[in-house]
Amino acid sequence: MKRSERLVDMTKFLMERPHKLISLPFFAQRYDAAKSSISEDLAILKHTLASNQDGILETVAGAAGGVRYIPYLGKSHAEEYLSDLASRVEDPSRILPGGFVYLSDVLSNSQDLQQIGKLFATRYAYSNVDVVMTVETKGISLAQSVARYLNVPFVIARKRSKVTEGATVSVNYISSSLDRVSKMELPTRALKKESNVLIVDDFMKGGGTLTGMEQLAHEFDCDVVGICVLCEADFDKDKLVDDYMSLVKINKIDTQKKIILAEPGNFLTETDFSHL
Amino acid sequence: MKRSERLVDMTKFLMERPHKLISLPFFAQRYDAAKSSISEDLAILKHTLASNQDGILETVAGAAGGVRYIPYLGKSHAEEYLSDLASRVEDPSRILPGGFVYLSDVLSNSQDLQQIGKLFATRYAYSNVDVVMTVETKGISLAQSVARYLNVPFVIARKRSKVTEGATVSVNYISSSLDRVSKMELPTRALKKESNVLIVDDFMKGGGTLTGMEQLAHEFDCDVVGICVLCEADFDKDKLVDDYMSLVKINKIDTQKKIILAEPGNFLTETDFSHL
Repeated sequence: MKRSERLVDMTKFLMERPHKLISLPFFAQRYDAAKSSISEDLAILKHTLASNQDGILETVAGAAGGVRYIPYLGKSHAEEYLSDLASRVEDPSRILPGGFVYLSDVLSNSQDLQQIGKLFATRYAYSNVDVVMTVETKGISLAQSVARYLNVPFVIARKRSKVTEGATVSVNYISSSLDRVSKMELPTRALKKESNVLIVDDFMKGGGTLTGMEQLAHEFDCDVVGICVLCEADFDKDKLVDDYMSLVKINKIDTQKKIILAEPGNFLTETDFSHL
Repeated sequence: MKRSERLVDMTKFLMERPHKLISLPFFAQRYDAAKSSISEDLAILKHTLASNQDGILETVAGAAGGVRYIPYLGKSHAEEYLSDLASRVEDPSRILPGGFVYLSDVLSNSQDLQQIGKLFATRYAYSNVDVVMTVETKGISLAQSVARYLNVPFVIARKRSKVTEGATVSVNYISSSLDRVSKMELPTRALKKESNVLIVDDFMKGGGTLTGMEQLAHEFDCDVVGICVLCEADFDKDKLVDDYMSLVKINKIDTQKKIILAEPGNFLTETDFSHL
């Protein structure tokens, strides 16, 4: 196979397997090419990704070595996307009765999910995440997208028992936007003990739902390596969690005047982007 | 930019934008290269995808023309994946009380979701799907994955009202696995009138939930272009829908003897794979 064809196939192959270590002999065999040619191919790939600030090709030396494609967005891409997203969130037709915000269009748009997934996967690229956790329903698409770019599974905590999940572990938590005690649960077989868990959700008001997921993770003896939300509503009340990452921060919702003010969240300042 | 670098970037660019028409002048400008060079690049890409039976690069001629990357898996890839999946479904530890089957591991595994998404996107690549519809909770990851490869949005019907969605349209349907009348609903702004809808769900027993989604689609004056499920349980009772596509067919569950028998579903026989 010619270099040009190898490069097309290799790019596709690596993009479909983020974070997975692929050995040079594997590629040498796949393309019936010398290892030195494969190394040159990979150098081209690495250089192209780096100059676009859109991914890292990491080389692992040694007998058990190889290469690994790491989805990773540069700061300028993040800034550009997040200011666009924040301005789209400011559309007053998103305001719903009770000060809620309609975000389902963002949460079900493939291109948005791709960007959001890459952003969180950038921040936690080197955090050894084993699994992404969310709670039904709206966080699911975000969790799936982050999990895709980290190439790990995701688990969905449920708010009601389902007969199709088998044995479960449940916790109680304060749902602060509803001011009541709620329950969420996870099938025992869904999460391995002592995993590193990244918690993802769509919207944070008081943070009660997030504390529920933290508790669930602890019930499985897991470590929480991070908490990510698409939107935080900053004006509401004291938060129950303090160490989290938000992409968009809503500063004000005026239901009467139909005004909603948003800006990029703390993601930009809390991420160092230094691996590129 | 050299051809080798252009090929890496072009492959990545197109893979991130399935089904979207990209004009040649766009690429010529992006890479500061002659249109004739870009045409040669694209011919290499097209040839490589075709020889791997793993995608189509479609050329659209004329002034408004360009190229379009279409995720499309060849029949041998589909056969290989589906026989592996069916044999994994046969694991007796999946059997839950009541004859239910644990599938959450498949539904939350990035690599499985990638294959499943590509398979359904192959079948409906030329069906002008505008939107993918599912119902909470377990169908969501499938719908998202299919939507990603078709590059269209997806909508999630809810079984309970939520205050964060605004105005909704609801329908009643017979939930055949529970033998009762249930309700599902969709926010009015989530689905455009007269769209072509592809319905996706995880598991079909009687098909009641699927008829609910069909009804919802009709309430929005939409056409249903197809119904896809991951698993169908064939032994149960008469189906309420007859025109559907399944990836895996479960022929028998014996809870006492801990036996579950599965085989690839009708997807393989009902898909012609002729566009490759």
